Amino acid sequence: MARTPFEPQKFTPADAAFEERVRASFARQRLMTTIGARLTSVLPGEVVIELPFREDLTQQHGYLHAAITTAIVDSACGYAAYSLMPADAAVLTAEYKVNFLAPAAGRKFVAYGRVTKPGRTLTVTAGDVFAETEAGQKPIATLLATMMTVSSREISG
Amino acid sequence: MARTPFEPQKFTPADAAFEERVRASFARQRLMTTIGARLTSVLPGEVVIELPFREDLTQQHGYLHAAITTAIVDSACGYAAYSLMPADAAVLTAEYKVNFLAPAAGRKFVAYGRVTKPGRTLTVTAGDVFAETEAGQKPIATLLATMMTVSSREISG
Amino acid sequence: MARTPFEPQKFTPADAAFEERVRASFARQRLMTTIGARLTSVLPGEVVIELPFREDLTQQHGYLHAAITTAIVDSACGYAAYSLMPADAAVLTAEYKVNFLAPAAGRKFVAYGRVTKPGRTLTVTAGDVFAETEAGQKPIATLLATMMTVSSREISG
Amino acid sequence: MARTPFEPQKFTPADAAFEERVRASFARQRLMTTIGARLTSVLPGEVVIELPFREDLTQQHGYLHAAITTAIVDSACGYAAYSLMPADAAVLTAEYKVNFLAPAAGRKFVAYGRVTKPGRTLTVTAGDVFAETEAGQKPIATLLATMMTVSSREISG
Repeated sequence: MARTPFEPQKFTPADAAFEERVRASFARQRLMTTIGARLTSVLPGEVVIELPFREDLTQQHGYLHAAITTAIVDSACGYAAYSLMPADAAVLTAEYKVNFLAPAAGRKFVAYGRVTKPGRTLTVTAGDVFAETEAGQKPIATLLATMMTVSSREISG
Repeated sequence: MARTPFEPQKFTPADAAFEERVRASFARQRLMTTIGARLTSVLPGEVVIELPFREDLTQQHGYLHAAITTAIVDSACGYAAYSLMPADAAVLTAEYKVNFLAPAAGRKFVAYGRVTKPGRTLTVTAGDVFAETEAGQKPIATLLATMMTVSSREISG
Repeated sequence: MARTPFEPQKFTPADAAFEERVRASFARQRLMTTIGARLTSVLPGEVVIELPFREDLTQQHGYLHAAITTAIVDSACGYAAYSLMPADAAVLTAEYKVNFLAPAAGRKFVAYGRVTKPGRTLTVTAGDVFAETEAGQKPIATLLATMMTVSSREISG
Repeated sequence: MARTPFEPQKFTPADAAFEERVRASFARQRLMTTIGARLTSVLPGEVVIELPFREDLTQQHGYLHAAITTAIVDSACGYAAYSLMPADAAVLTAEYKVNFLAPAAGRKFVAYGRVTKPGRTLTVTAGDVFAETEAGQKPIATLLATMMTVSSREISG
């Protein structure tokens, strides 16, 4: 079959200190600390965030709440976009769409965010979340999101 | 101008005890308690959820995290759909898309969820989130979501 | 019930000649002519497009193809956004999401596009499509889209 | 880096005659004939559709209209889902979201649709569209969509 020409892309960051910048911003996201999320990998255009299961983050059937699944994959994608932005930029989520593939049951959740198409103003990103279960990794959600580059002066408040 | 023929719709719930059922399910959503969200109104096909601002729920610039904004409007829409479902049904979010309209700055956030089109299997819903600020209410996000009716036997476990 | 504070918004166009500009751009959309779509109303931030049913635009079950439903509501929303832009701007669709509510059966389809939140770079819009049937108007699709303002110099080519 | 565990998936079709069924349904999509689209590859869970550029399918700047880009990738994804469905099923698009990555300039457009997660009722799919230009293939759009399995009896008529 004709295969999709999409290969994992290699990106060159505009700012060599991108990892430090991503880690510093992640550390300022109070919600990530509140829910117990960890930034486990930062590469140019690719970020991974992990979250151990916690009962206080569940929905009515005892699974991880969709919004928490979204929180980690949105952050992974936002930081994937941010890793390619200039040193003086800030990143905002303009919009996202998430499909939920299976109930979020597992002892740990891993969100992979990657840049699909970087741009001066808008960066399109894609992400996936997997649950670690006794039967191995299982996909539970997939996201498509638009991230926006803004001046860090505009956003500070 | 020709106006859109969309009028606020009146729905007749399949289960007269819909409000009790919605409130009981909301009470089981541990995340809602964790973040401090309150169910303020339950009508057939329309649900309102409020959330006071809290610093431990913020993103890197000090605004409410997009995922928390999403949490309350997803729940409002899920319960709007659930209010019209039969007594033995359970509700799952199949997918959602959220556009963020302004930074989530305010002392309180109010999410309105409503049913656009009920269905046996899929119910389409729409939601809006407003920030209460000193200058009045300000829209900060808008959502379009697909909710799925499942048997409560399928989901329990 | 606490009602959503969303009221139909009144917008003031940046360019008094907005209607002429929208109509001229619509006339250049070759696809609109190809499928037989008509621009029936242009107000600031609100545009209506109509399309009579045609068998050569159908999908495998004889209904109007989802992409044609999308074409008219995307254009209605794009022009709703464009109506509020400065005279030297061009508009591009950054992304859209459409939910299909019912099979697109009818003799005519009417797409309503309106601005939810205008912005310098991004404008969020919402749209609805109705089918005209013997039993009256029936909603068949709802859209949420992000439109982007670009310089008309950037886009010409 | 921890790599995403997503590998291209191998699917086993429920109906051995899936390709014939997909090609017959595609042939009934009048819109595909109208715009000149061709089904170039049908594998279990993966479908490719091509479209040569035509001036009567353009938007106001002379590029292929977003809705036509959407038409081919929606059909590719719908048929990718349909390829895995039982022989007596029909497929409907429940909803889709498309991000546009670059102006649709090129002499030919190729849409790749694939199944992300098959399901009894809902199948989640992803798609990409590339433009063939003198400088090679260039991504112009990416889609995330929910396809629904319905009884072919429900949909006929």
